[in-house]
Amino acid sequence: MVQIPKTPAAPSPAPRSVPTSADVARLAGVSRATVSYVLNNTSAVRISEPTRRRVHEAAKELGYVPHAAARSLRAGHSRMVLMPAPTMPVGLLYSQFINELQWALSRLDYTVVQHGSVGLRGDEAARAWAELRPVAVLVPGAGLGPEGVEVLKRSGARAVLTLGPEKVEGAHALLLDHEGVGHCAGAHLYGRGRRRIGVVVPEEPGMGVFSRPRLEGVRRALLGTDATVTELPLAYSEESAARIAAQWRALGLDAVFTYNDEYAMLLMRALQDEGIRIPEDTAVIGADDLMIGRLLRPRLSTVHIQLPSGHELAELVDTAVREPGGAPGTHELLGATVVHRDSS
Amino acid sequence: MVQIPKTPAAPSPAPRSVPTSADVARLAGVSRATVSYVLNNTSAVRISEPTRRRVHEAAKELGYVPHAAARSLRAGHSRMVLMPAPTMPVGLLYSQFINELQWALSRLDYTVVQHGSVGLRGDEAARAWAELRPVAVLVPGAGLGPEGVEVLKRSGARAVLTLGPEKVEGAHALLLDHEGVGHCAGAHLYGRGRRRIGVVVPEEPGMGVFSRPRLEGVRRALLGTDATVTELPLAYSEESAARIAAQWRALGLDAVFTYNDEYAMLLMRALQDEGIRIPEDTAVIGADDLMIGRLLRPRLSTVHIQLPSGHELAELVDTAVREPGGAPGTHELLGATVVHRDSS
Repeated sequence: MVQIPKTPAAPSPAPRSVPTSADVARLAGVSRATVSYVLNNTSAVRISEPTRRRVHEAAKELGYVPHAAARSLRAGHSRMVLMPAPTMPVGLLYSQFINELQWALSRLDYTVVQHGSVGLRGDEAARAWAELRPVAVLVPGAGLGPEGVEVLKRSGARAVLTLGPEKVEGAHALLLDHEGVGHCAGAHLYGRGRRRIGVVVPEEPGMGVFSRPRLEGVRRALLGTDATVTELPLAYSEESAARIAAQWRALGLDAVFTYNDEYAMLLMRALQDEGIRIPEDTAVIGADDLMIGRLLRPRLSTVHIQLPSGHELAELVDTAVREPGGAPGTHELLGATVVHRDSS
Repeated sequence: MVQIPKTPAAPSPAPRSVPTSADVARLAGVSRATVSYVLNNTSAVRISEPTRRRVHEAAKELGYVPHAAARSLRAGHSRMVLMPAPTMPVGLLYSQFINELQWALSRLDYTVVQHGSVGLRGDEAARAWAELRPVAVLVPGAGLGPEGVEVLKRSGARAVLTLGPEKVEGAHALLLDHEGVGHCAGAHLYGRGRRRIGVVVPEEPGMGVFSRPRLEGVRRALLGTDATVTELPLAYSEESAARIAAQWRALGLDAVFTYNDEYAMLLMRALQDEGIRIPEDTAVIGADDLMIGRLLRPRLSTVHIQLPSGHELAELVDTAVREPGGAPGTHELLGATVVHRDSS
């Protein structure tokens, strides 16, 4: 369907030269330093209004845009906060959080750049990020090691922050307590009188960093009780859900924590199609408190996850950048509470 | 919940200096040019294996990473493909597409960077993007004008591609035919014998660029027939859906195109809670062909949207970069077909 544009028979015209601050200076009849002072809004130097105007007009006429890279080469650092771009579809909850964070950082005059370092892992990715010379790096998930942190700092990053289940040496750790999410769910199901508890573990690659601690949290909540925990590998497909549902009566489970609300919708449908009554035969609880859970019948119980506001996290990034000598801190970022509806 | 790290009482130590290629050259006992040849894998110059090894070891020891910005200053351009980061939660369909595109471009040795230019509009955003000197810019949605395209090209972008409903002067246009999606839905409902057709128009800001052409497509499909089209503003909330459902019998509609599958799930639930039978009283069709539509009961009819593969689009970007003198092309990127299930 996509057609590659035709190559013209004639040779391509030479690319036009990119205008420089020297061109602007020439046209405005001022020095390059003056151009730099005006366009970077330097307040230390007094420049008359007519001169300012002349520089702005010349820049506009030539289509001159300052080069962030050149500026950061001079300044030694940029205002760029780098994050790796997600390599799998992120949920609604996370995408709203990232969006809010971008807004908050942009109000503090940072530019958030999401780097598509697909296929690179851990410290190899860190080297690719370092090439852009970000002033701060915020890494969700796991994978970055102490060596990667060191590479980033050596290349000028004033702050490295990880957003994940574990602390990495040299980085500020924003700990996402996924175990706490599982603990909540497990304790709730036990409190509802359930004893044979299944836990969905998504089979999609890359999810283990979230799903393993959630599973561990359920185990921890049920430790020393008479309840059992059964791991249920599940792919996000109707076939996979139907396979589990067909074995459900043999499994003898009376409750299931489905990792999140999307897997809950998938599994609930398969169970209902098998004639399993929810919650009478099996109690179901999801996590993330998405809209879809409220639209299901029975209404889905879920674990509501309290992420920090983008504003709070932006302040944390800014403080870390302004105080690069401060000891890396550790911050608990995830509060979890059960929202009890009709499915459990 | 988030605590700002304590500022140490003692003054921060001075930031360590960032290692440069001169440092690497000194440690390896070679010239800076040799360091550059080795680390940039230049094949034009023959350099012995032991020298190569010495340079790599010195770079590793010092933690030196080449500066992408410095390299692009010398080369005049980068391998960066810039996209604005989405400013609203994107659907599963779009996020998978972006992910695939990132993979395909990385295989062609480009780095995709998503720029969080939140709060900037159109040509103002283009100036912020231009500061990073991308070699290509891919802009989904509307908003970029001919002036923005010019700013990007003047700052060295070899290709500007828009992914949206309209062509912009100077840019390659990858046209997403949302009107075609609406046309499909309208023609399907008419073919099923429905004559009083509602069309959901999401109230969330920024959606108009997609929802307006979808609405127009329905109108076009029904032009000259005896069917009527009723616009239904709907926010993505249970309250908004309940309000519309309460008026449903008064509206007298016998079918609804819900913009997409997520709004379909929301509205279907509200209609079913009001005792409206689907499809007997009202036929429902969504769009995007998401998993959730297959999990609904009755199973949701939908418009399947054929996006190009990430591989195809990456080839298009690469060709546009390699042939910057080629005339901007126009490409239709969106095929639409009805998937008929039980709700219509």
